[in-house]
Amino acid sequence: MDYFFSPQTIAIIGASHVKGKIGYTILENFIRSKYPGKIFPVNPNVNEILGLRVYPSVKNIPQDIDLAIIAVPAKIVPKVLKECVEKKVKGVIIVSGGFSEIGKEGKKLEEKLKKIIKGKKTRVLGPNCLGALDTSSKLDTLFHPLEKLVRPKEGNIGFISQSGAVGSVILDIFSEEQIGISKFISYENALDIDESDCIEFLGKDEKTKIILLFLEGVKDGKKFLRVAKKVSQIKPIIVLKGGKTEKGRKAALSHTGSLAGSARIYSSVFKQVGIIEANTHEELIDFAKAFSQPLPKGNRIAIVTDGGGFGVLACDEAERQGLKLPEPSNKLKKIFRKIFPEHVILSNPIDLTGDVTTERFRIAIEECLKSKEFDGVITITLFQVPALEKDIVDAIANLKKYGKPILCCAAGGRFTLELSKALEKNGIPVYPSPERAVKAMAALVNYSRMKGWK
Amino acid sequence: MDYFFSPQTIAIIGASHVKGKIGYTILENFIRSKYPGKIFPVNPNVNEILGLRVYPSVKNIPQDIDLAIIAVPAKIVPKVLKECVEKKVKGVIIVSGGFSEIGKEGKKLEEKLKKIIKGKKTRVLGPNCLGALDTSSKLDTLFHPLEKLVRPKEGNIGFISQSGAVGSVILDIFSEEQIGISKFISYENALDIDESDCIEFLGKDEKTKIILLFLEGVKDGKKFLRVAKKVSQIKPIIVLKGGKTEKGRKAALSHTGSLAGSARIYSSVFKQVGIIEANTHEELIDFAKAFSQPLPKGNRIAIVTDGGGFGVLACDEAERQGLKLPEPSNKLKKIFRKIFPEHVILSNPIDLTGDVTTERFRIAIEECLKSKEFDGVITITLFQVPALEKDIVDAIANLKKYGKPILCCAAGGRFTLELSKALEKNGIPVYPSPERAVKAMAALVNYSRMKGWK
Repeated sequence: MDYFFSPQTIAIIGASHVKGKIGYTILENFIRSKYPGKIFPVNPNVNEILGLRVYPSVKNIPQDIDLAIIAVPAKIVPKVLKECVEKKVKGVIIVSGGFSEIGKEGKKLEEKLKKIIKGKKTRVLGPNCLGALDTSSKLDTLFHPLEKLVRPKEGNIGFISQSGAVGSVILDIFSEEQIGISKFISYENALDIDESDCIEFLGKDEKTKIILLFLEGVKDGKKFLRVAKKVSQIKPIIVLKGGKTEKGRKAALSHTGSLAGSARIYSSVFKQVGIIEANTHEELIDFAKAFSQPLPKGNRIAIVTDGGGFGVLACDEAERQGLKLPEPSNKLKKIFRKIFPEHVILSNPIDLTGDVTTERFRIAIEECLKSKEFDGVITITLFQVPALEKDIVDAIANLKKYGKPILCCAAGGRFTLELSKALEKNGIPVYPSPERAVKAMAALVNYSRMKGWK
Repeated sequence: MDYFFSPQTIAIIGASHVKGKIGYTILENFIRSKYPGKIFPVNPNVNEILGLRVYPSVKNIPQDIDLAIIAVPAKIVPKVLKECVEKKVKGVIIVSGGFSEIGKEGKKLEEKLKKIIKGKKTRVLGPNCLGALDTSSKLDTLFHPLEKLVRPKEGNIGFISQSGAVGSVILDIFSEEQIGISKFISYENALDIDESDCIEFLGKDEKTKIILLFLEGVKDGKKFLRVAKKVSQIKPIIVLKGGKTEKGRKAALSHTGSLAGSARIYSSVFKQVGIIEANTHEELIDFAKAFSQPLPKGNRIAIVTDGGGFGVLACDEAERQGLKLPEPSNKLKKIFRKIFPEHVILSNPIDLTGDVTTERFRIAIEECLKSKEFDGVITITLFQVPALEKDIVDAIANLKKYGKPILCCAAGGRFTLELSKALEKNGIPVYPSPERAVKAMAALVNYSRMKGWK
């Protein structure tokens, strides 16, 4: 699948000179992002677009083509795909919609495409997809203007999405939140390349350490089981499954032509092969952030807070998630009692209350991490209180040295958002609710347990 | 309770000259916010703070006192509260912690306070609370520095919180998201004034149209039932309940000394009295935003989207929430078929796909609102696609004229956040996930159903 991510020669079939059209934006993005490969726009009705010579057909291009991107009306796709096969194009991304997702007629058309590539070497991503993005090679076949969807920076998350919409939104959030990715693949109708191929590919990709997956339906169950089981032992795979209810399944059928299947079956399969399941796209991102932390060696978590109510909500979620919140030992309590004022509550959560200082926060978290009583810490650090200043960021970030996961919950306005950003920049993931921080910690715990706490 | 919100004379007992101390920040906030009443700092060890004369005791103040704020160590609270009673102070806010929430000793101390006010006219908020905020009178007893917690603007949401932390975070989010409030009350341990008193008060408050409540435990069940039942018929009451699990209940006990009780009992009581329940503080805010919309007259919702995957997730949630997603009638489909390209999916969701234009979005939403087939619209408007520009904001906002609720889902980075803000400013609530938009619509539907769709 490498030619999908670092092609030397690229044909854009359906390149348009009309601004706002998909075939225009894809080409424009290639030019603006200065992709180091050679670009060949294809369109029989135009001679030049954005200063580039336009070819009437892919077959007229005087060079071998590694990757062709097809963005023409559905009816014309069989014709141009056939030309790609004849030209021996290695990889084809079909962006055009109007196939199995629209019903019978589209299904027929998709079958036609299948026949065209059968037994040939040309591999296809899509139809009805966004294609691929590679932060290292700079390949970017998305049809979203760069100013509307800022591309994320380089990082170690590999992201596979069956939905271009879900994919593009998450990429946009990644860039906003300064989360880096390695590669993005949108495969939608999975005419040829499916989710398992993508997982296998990212499983081998050196730049990818975490795999995210938005899935509506699995194409080949056995293949999925085999691949996911193997890869999840090497890298965490986090999945968001669309089409979990009857209505959702119907919608999935008319979105990617997927048979979404029973939610319960999917969930138990995910568990069986060691995949972590998220329930919303926010959770998918939350969990991905958590995996920047070391894996916990057990499920005993300390919650340290300066807000009692948020501590209560975190407890509620920890119980739902099956995390253990042991009380600090008497030894630990003695240490704390010496330093903290009387109104500090030495339970789990440790409630430092609203007159907390940076020093008290540091001591509480550090002693929990140092002790053998806890495998990780969730710090609910509400920055709005009088005595917390910017030095709280370094105080917490420095505690990474204990090699245990630290997740932070903080929520609020300008000041809090600023400090949260600084904390994330320093390697501590921040969540806007106690429930989300707890669920993210549970994802780490569950993955670590699956791997035998290794 | 009026003297808690627009007192003419205010004593700050425990006013401090040490920056970072709670007793300093409360006083500083009064001065910085230019509260129009008279402020009297009280502290036996200092003569002047921030240019104001300091009195050794509340009894030395040469004027009647409407409101006293107590921020001294727990042990001294009985003494100063007694002085307040003797001085016939009308309202007292006890900010100090160290009472029933810390265990036996604290419980005893709290009993002492109860005895002191028994049979007297002095009313008490707290202890262990933040007090009150009134965006109209400008009263603000919060101990959070103004730059760390920007106060929200004037609006119609009345917000009651048993947790100062949850309260302060939500206020901070409100200001960040430009959501206005009328009044905020933090009552925590509820020594005297409890959640029912607050609900009753906000029920009568003309500036309050929506009541939000964060609750750990109800003090007086019968009173709560009676008050909530009455008020929920006039104004929506949205509650977030902390302490729903065993661990959470234990934490609630050591936070506000509340007996949190069984989650199921609480949920069924809420339903019975017409209270809408949120599951997280994010939902509490989500629901509050939704109530800016007209109430739907039924539960038939149209989902209009330009992203299929998000449409699928919205469907899943709609099924969980019991919302009806009827297919558009043949009549409606005919209208759409004439205008929309073939790959547009005319089901529910209506999937306009990634080459959507503002005009197509407008037509889809408007025809659904105009028809008698739908009671409200959720528009999943992913702004990242090529042909959507800023005019989409006005196009959607103009459709408010049909008097049906419109909720929007949009998520992403800079461009999306900017357009989302503009949309919210124009009266359309925006949610960062399809699930959250659907849940908010369900809150509207459930409240309207409870009121007999009137």
